[in-house]
Amino acid sequence: MSEYSSVTQWLGQDRQGYTLPQGLYVSRAAFEFDTRVMLKRVWLYACTVAHVKKPGDFYLFEMANTSVIIVRGRDGEVRAFHNSCAHRGAKLCSQAQGSAPRIMCPYHQWTYSLDGKLLAARNMPEGFEKADHGLQPARLENIGGLIFICLSDDPPTIEHARADIAERVAIYNLEHCKVAVQDDIVEAANWKLVMENNRECYHCDVNHPELLKSLGTSGFGKGLPGDDAEAAQGARYEEYLAAQQAAWREAGLYTHLVEFPDDGWHRVVRLPLANGSRSQTIDGEPASRVPICVHPGTGDSSLSVWTQPNSWHHFCQDHAVTFSLTPLDADRTLLRTSWLVHEDAVEGVDYDVDNLAAVWRATNRQDSMLAELNHAGIATDGYRPGPYALEERLVEEFKEFYVETAKSALGEGAA
Amino acid sequence: MSEYSSVTQWLGQDRQGYTLPQGLYVSRAAFEFDTRVMLKRVWLYACTVAHVKKPGDFYLFEMANTSVIIVRGRDGEVRAFHNSCAHRGAKLCSQAQGSAPRIMCPYHQWTYSLDGKLLAARNMPEGFEKADHGLQPARLENIGGLIFICLSDDPPTIEHARADIAERVAIYNLEHCKVAVQDDIVEAANWKLVMENNRECYHCDVNHPELLKSLGTSGFGKGLPGDDAEAAQGARYEEYLAAQQAAWREAGLYTHLVEFPDDGWHRVVRLPLANGSRSQTIDGEPASRVPICVHPGTGDSSLSVWTQPNSWHHFCQDHAVTFSLTPLDADRTLLRTSWLVHEDAVEGVDYDVDNLAAVWRATNRQDSMLAELNHAGIATDGYRPGPYALEERLVEEFKEFYVETAKSALGEGAA
Amino acid sequence: MSEYSSVTQWLGQDRQGYTLPQGLYVSRAAFEFDTRVMLKRVWLYACTVAHVKKPGDFYLFEMANTSVIIVRGRDGEVRAFHNSCAHRGAKLCSQAQGSAPRIMCPYHQWTYSLDGKLLAARNMPEGFEKADHGLQPARLENIGGLIFICLSDDPPTIEHARADIAERVAIYNLEHCKVAVQDDIVEAANWKLVMENNRECYHCDVNHPELLKSLGTSGFGKGLPGDDAEAAQGARYEEYLAAQQAAWREAGLYTHLVEFPDDGWHRVVRLPLANGSRSQTIDGEPASRVPICVHPGTGDSSLSVWTQPNSWHHFCQDHAVTFSLTPLDADRTLLRTSWLVHEDAVEGVDYDVDNLAAVWRATNRQDSMLAELNHAGIATDGYRPGPYALEERLVEEFKEFYVETAKSALGEGAA
Repeated sequence: MSEYSSVTQWLGQDRQGYTLPQGLYVSRAAFEFDTRVMLKRVWLYACTVAHVKKPGDFYLFEMANTSVIIVRGRDGEVRAFHNSCAHRGAKLCSQAQGSAPRIMCPYHQWTYSLDGKLLAARNMPEGFEKADHGLQPARLENIGGLIFICLSDDPPTIEHARADIAERVAIYNLEHCKVAVQDDIVEAANWKLVMENNRECYHCDVNHPELLKSLGTSGFGKGLPGDDAEAAQGARYEEYLAAQQAAWREAGLYTHLVEFPDDGWHRVVRLPLANGSRSQTIDGEPASRVPICVHPGTGDSSLSVWTQPNSWHHFCQDHAVTFSLTPLDADRTLLRTSWLVHEDAVEGVDYDVDNLAAVWRATNRQDSMLAELNHAGIATDGYRPGPYALEERLVEEFKEFYVETAKSALGEGAA
Repeated sequence: MSEYSSVTQWLGQDRQGYTLPQGLYVSRAAFEFDTRVMLKRVWLYACTVAHVKKPGDFYLFEMANTSVIIVRGRDGEVRAFHNSCAHRGAKLCSQAQGSAPRIMCPYHQWTYSLDGKLLAARNMPEGFEKADHGLQPARLENIGGLIFICLSDDPPTIEHARADIAERVAIYNLEHCKVAVQDDIVEAANWKLVMENNRECYHCDVNHPELLKSLGTSGFGKGLPGDDAEAAQGARYEEYLAAQQAAWREAGLYTHLVEFPDDGWHRVVRLPLANGSRSQTIDGEPASRVPICVHPGTGDSSLSVWTQPNSWHHFCQDHAVTFSLTPLDADRTLLRTSWLVHEDAVEGVDYDVDNLAAVWRATNRQDSMLAELNHAGIATDGYRPGPYALEERLVEEFKEFYVETAKSALGEGAA
Repeated sequence: MSEYSSVTQWLGQDRQGYTLPQGLYVSRAAFEFDTRVMLKRVWLYACTVAHVKKPGDFYLFEMANTSVIIVRGRDGEVRAFHNSCAHRGAKLCSQAQGSAPRIMCPYHQWTYSLDGKLLAARNMPEGFEKADHGLQPARLENIGGLIFICLSDDPPTIEHARADIAERVAIYNLEHCKVAVQDDIVEAANWKLVMENNRECYHCDVNHPELLKSLGTSGFGKGLPGDDAEAAQGARYEEYLAAQQAAWREAGLYTHLVEFPDDGWHRVVRLPLANGSRSQTIDGEPASRVPICVHPGTGDSSLSVWTQPNSWHHFCQDHAVTFSLTPLDADRTLLRTSWLVHEDAVEGVDYDVDNLAAVWRATNRQDSMLAELNHAGIATDGYRPGPYALEERLVEEFKEFYVETAKSALGEGAA
């Protein structure tokens, strides 16, 4: 991979406890490497089953030069196909989401079934076999209703993540949820900086007043039960947490923290909501009257899931919010936020979209500004890698995942 | 040409019967190669004599890094010059079209005659000879009123094309036409995809309702007299065509198809208009009351000319429409359409611009959308070269012209 | 510096008396070289002391990948620091100008003193020393109130320039001036073309009617006392100039021309204002009632300073106008013009901004259009380097400064 020699060089300069060299954050070369090599070696979060509820529902996963159609088949299975016609390559689906009985190319009307088989192609030369010209599949896994795809034919194992996530998320019944609202923000920052920003709350106190109403920051990179940093936050919180965890155990809920285990790329934790809140809302009250989770003992806590390298998710009793991140360019990243409520909840009656989305809309806006400042400063030649604070442990965890995956990909010499 | 090594590699991967490898359609490298090397080896259609009717009239031919002034001299000859002052290089003409008695640089007023000689340059050092600092000419040929230029000093032969085109087009009297209206569309697609789209009507039935009112698609890549594919369209059309051709012969008109002969890059054919139409208009009636062609036997047919690699033209009894295509970027192509009517026709009296342009404006809009989808899908890493349909024979003809010209240019090692 | 091999090649093609090869003006490679190498070897004009009048006032110098904070400390000294937090690199100051008691990063509130020391950083690992994480300084020199910075740790000597400029400019009291108005224009041209345009008045007669009301062009590249070209302008002007210079000498003002001496990069000259003008204004009258210079004998002349490679300045009795130029991209250059008046002058009472700025606003607009045409023509493949006119001697002087600095930087192999 001599075309990525500068990336190799920068990876070699990475230093423990410090941010990455400039080139890895801002260069076109690193963007090409990330989107053509590194991000194709890993599982990427795409959407939930609620985004493709019914047979024929499709959803596009797009990232740099990748466009994948995620579509639910007549058999209820969710599959992924590359969004390019097997004839002359035209883009099959242009809408970000929709529904169709079959996949028909708008150019010359080549038509495919929902499971990717070529059904119709007019006037082809003798010897043409439809069976040879179906859509190209991409790997897809459904973990508790969260859809992950991998653009490699040789994906890493996903079983550890499935074991830790699927059952915990299952109580939120994503198959019976619907997408109440979805926001796209394009942040003027490299995707890795958007991720780094997500992985610490060192910046929260000053920047996120809305978020801090319902989220205790103790679980968000500011230290967790057992951490030294946590101890500093006082015995009172620890006592409260211990009582909560006892109650969760009683109710049959997992309570221990799963934090990026050896062959894993996931972090899962149940955390008490702060200030007596019962949901991640401005007023702390549930945003939807129809619960998505009726499991006892989940009313004053939320379940959070983070995955490397591109997602995070929070599950409350009344709604779930999921975040997916996709690089668009070296300095442009799409953050898509989806708020899910129960499929029976009626907009305007059971929930109000503005209220449902208020906390994270404000938080996203604030984070977007911070990531943009971070990128802008790193893009100047005055930037030097700087030291992570104690509360930025998970930022470094993300950085290490990136560096190791990147080095491994370069070592294999694959593209 | 080691700077084009990736282009060489992609050309080597080209496979008969299949679309080109991704890089040739979407990469910056291929765009650089196309506009700096490949397209400089061939004749490019620029405009008609009607675009530069009078001495002093000029018209810019612009493509990527090329800007050429096409100007009619006081002697009535049409010439081409590079649009850069011999002093410090300023752009001489910025308007796309206009008229001027001389060519004067707006920066320091260096002044050139219409045939490119430097007439005035103030205050130059001793030894400066005006004769050494005229405008740089580009090669130009006028074929029946169609202006072609070549950016190489060693252009390929044009004589075969002249022999096949000039006389047939001559009956439409382009020297006595004027440009009634001209449209520029920038299509979000590589120029080769805009060309490929022009070279087949496999996509017409579903996408071009306006065009199909007056054009029988049988001549537009869907097979022609003698083709196997044509036979499938039924004996009735063949009989009708045979009768028409007999009448044309009677009237002294050529009738046989000229289709990209060995050393040629042109296709010429006379075709009957469909559905009793007498012009390529929505209602099938002539759009201008003043005919441009009074040759007997041309009232219910049109003459069509296609040239590799960047033009096509349709001539009806009352108007002509010409299309030129120029690459602006790897994914942006300018399609310029000019509608010509007789110079004596009066707008609002003899013709209405909206009516004149309606068919091809609608068709261009539809084609632009299709080319954009084609480019968007090919730009994804899920694209694989796909097989051409039988009706896409002329698409492959274009592809082969491109591949052969490109290979030849690379083989010569010239840049 | 093998990554700049094309730049080396183009520099080798440079020919005396002729404009530069195309690549040096328009290519991305040359832009990268200029902004990462060549422009980091030289002193760059940034602003005046009037831009940072009080302690805590800051001003950003930004160029391509450079962002430097110029800030006045509590001790009155003006210093320069790279605009990137020592923690995770965020941009510290986003506003182009402002005032602050300390420099605080908006991301995680790391806080620095005005002289760049790290004052506060929460929750850092053991062993973290604040003294190791201050802001990175850039070299800065104050010459008569004009602030120059150098992005190299090994800047060229500035003493010759200081000796020639500081005292002459001092009589205009920049420390007691304020910025009355500042304009930013982004010109669609390479920075070297914007500079070349500034270095000749061969284009003035036709293009700059407003400027020529008060400026005799004889001093602006059209030849100076003693030049051959000047002689052509007639004995009458020479006599007038001689009388003026005698009066200036009498008044204790320097009169001789300093023109890019051997180790210098500056040109300084006092010139009589034309047409009986007393300031560079449309009506020739002072634009501000409060003089900035009360030195006898400066009422009907102006002092002009030009520096390689990015500034020029004109000082009149009532106001000063300074121009700084910074490359933004290969074909985009920021021209910032600041008009300074006495700090005691009151807007609307003592001066009117539109009147103050009228001459150079018109002139900048005209020059911007010319530079854009120049770039556009050079960007076409029809461009060939062309010969400079006699009046373009200072354009070539600039070109030679560029070529020599560039060759020297490449020779040293530094980046």
